[in-house]
Amino acid sequence: MIELREIEELLSECLPKNDEGFGMLSEAMRYSVLGGGKRLRAIMLIESFRLFSDDEELERYTAFPFACALECIHGYSLVHDDLPAMDNDEYRRGALTTHKRYGHAMGILTGDALLNYSMEIITQAGEKLLKNKPDYYVDNIRNYIHAASILFKNAGAFGMIGGQVLDVEGFGEGAEADDENLSLMCELKTSRLFQAALCCGAVLAGADEKEVSLLEDIGRMMGLAFQIRDDILDVTASFDETGKDTGSDEKNNKSTFVSVFGLGESREKVRNLYEEIKRRLKQLPGDKSSFEMLFEKLFTL
Amino acid sequence: MIELREIEELLSECLPKNDEGFGMLSEAMRYSVLGGGKRLRAIMLIESFRLFSDDEELERYTAFPFACALECIHGYSLVHDDLPAMDNDEYRRGALTTHKRYGHAMGILTGDALLNYSMEIITQAGEKLLKNKPDYYVDNIRNYIHAASILFKNAGAFGMIGGQVLDVEGFGEGAEADDENLSLMCELKTSRLFQAALCCGAVLAGADEKEVSLLEDIGRMMGLAFQIRDDILDVTASFDETGKDTGSDEKNNKSTFVSVFGLGESREKVRNLYEEIKRRLKQLPGDKSSFEMLFEKLFTL
Repeated sequence: MIELREIEELLSECLPKNDEGFGMLSEAMRYSVLGGGKRLRAIMLIESFRLFSDDEELERYTAFPFACALECIHGYSLVHDDLPAMDNDEYRRGALTTHKRYGHAMGILTGDALLNYSMEIITQAGEKLLKNKPDYYVDNIRNYIHAASILFKNAGAFGMIGGQVLDVEGFGEGAEADDENLSLMCELKTSRLFQAALCCGAVLAGADEKEVSLLEDIGRMMGLAFQIRDDILDVTASFDETGKDTGSDEKNNKSTFVSVFGLGESREKVRNLYEEIKRRLKQLPGDKSSFEMLFEKLFTL
Repeated sequence: MIELREIEELLSECLPKNDEGFGMLSEAMRYSVLGGGKRLRAIMLIESFRLFSDDEELERYTAFPFACALECIHGYSLVHDDLPAMDNDEYRRGALTTHKRYGHAMGILTGDALLNYSMEIITQAGEKLLKNKPDYYVDNIRNYIHAASILFKNAGAFGMIGGQVLDVEGFGEGAEADDENLSLMCELKTSRLFQAALCCGAVLAGADEKEVSLLEDIGRMMGLAFQIRDDILDVTASFDETGKDTGSDEKNNKSTFVSVFGLGESREKVRNLYEEIKRRLKQLPGDKSSFEMLFEKLFTL
């Protein structure tokens, strides 16, 4: 499995240096993205690429920049989520949130800059690919643009941002937070970026439609299992274990899988999703041991 | 010159319909982008394309989606600028700002969704170009990706967003708002999207480096002239003429070209820039009458 250290190096290399650019922006961008985290999405993207290709040069030209772009998107979404008008959080991963550290306006602008930067990374890497690898030309550029399209569709109004809107607006007048509504919100807010990771990696490596569709399924279920597990941890773990305020869902009077289904049924849901994920993983080609390890770590409660 | 009505139709067609997607997001996206405006950037992009190409099909596949994407970027930047933590504006173009109309959190999310949507437009149009026009393939895709790279570079941390950061943070400890600082901020905040418009249009149409560089110059000076003119209007025009609160710069104690140089010298600056712009325009190929008309309208005080 690609090591966390390698991802951190890629990200550190790819983000603007502290002394570049204007005011505190580059520093705030680095602070927001490099402040730890499991890099789940970047790892998944690269490991998904590796299921279908062992071309290290193509990986460097395509999967690596996509992994960095995806972490920038994930990072910006956290920065904006933490803003006073949204979740109003003061800490993330045990450190001050971006707007608490750099001010409210800078929180907004840093998020904007990171989302925009994800596009800069991808377009610049695309230019490099065209320039340096003319032999890759036809198929790889088609895959490259298709992967970029998948990424931003999943991150956008009909993906992650749509989920944020449901979270902010609720499910419409009188609508209860039932299984269906909670699942939809979670699929949008959490699954979509997992799906982007898995599908982009596969598309960049030349996977076929059926394989990409299996990975889309896995990403959807992973997001659900991941969020349910997060809700479980929110009531069972401490600040030291999670690095953020626990019990905050209850404090914010927020509907979660645990508040709707209870701990027992929530755990059961994670177990069932994990089984389904493993079943689909078996149908994919390549060495799947990295994903097996990853999923075991994530979904064994 | 392409008509405002055509641009509005393109934009209306390209944005999500009101009943698509989640909660009020699509409506808020349309409200933010379709609420009027001169569409200067979209017009400039398309007219710049037309200086170098009369291929209407290529225009439809490339310049049109880029023009829509650029208006989404401009739109998102206004939505986030208006937020309470930024300029805290209640009206724009005579109507409530997005966050006043849809709520603070939705203001943030609508801006995010529009920026993200700009990339969705461009990647999806790129996929269509590859699929439907294989004969355009090699050069046009290279130009396409290069144009996308130019667009997001100009919109990002080293472009427009960088300018916002200077506006929010000031120019550093003890630094005065002098000509140099004001010009830098204005080049970033205003010129960069004009430059993106002119250069993207030209690159998509296959202009050469020297031509693109002339357009970059024109865009830079246009942004300056445009901002100085805006500062002049802020003290000389009324709400009815501009559709926004006038005198707001003075009220917010903001340094402007007028507050630093006075009205007379500011007008002189616009006149000089206008002369320089015309001098460069002469060096470009194609029918330049649209630009001549546009610049005359903008820069005759």
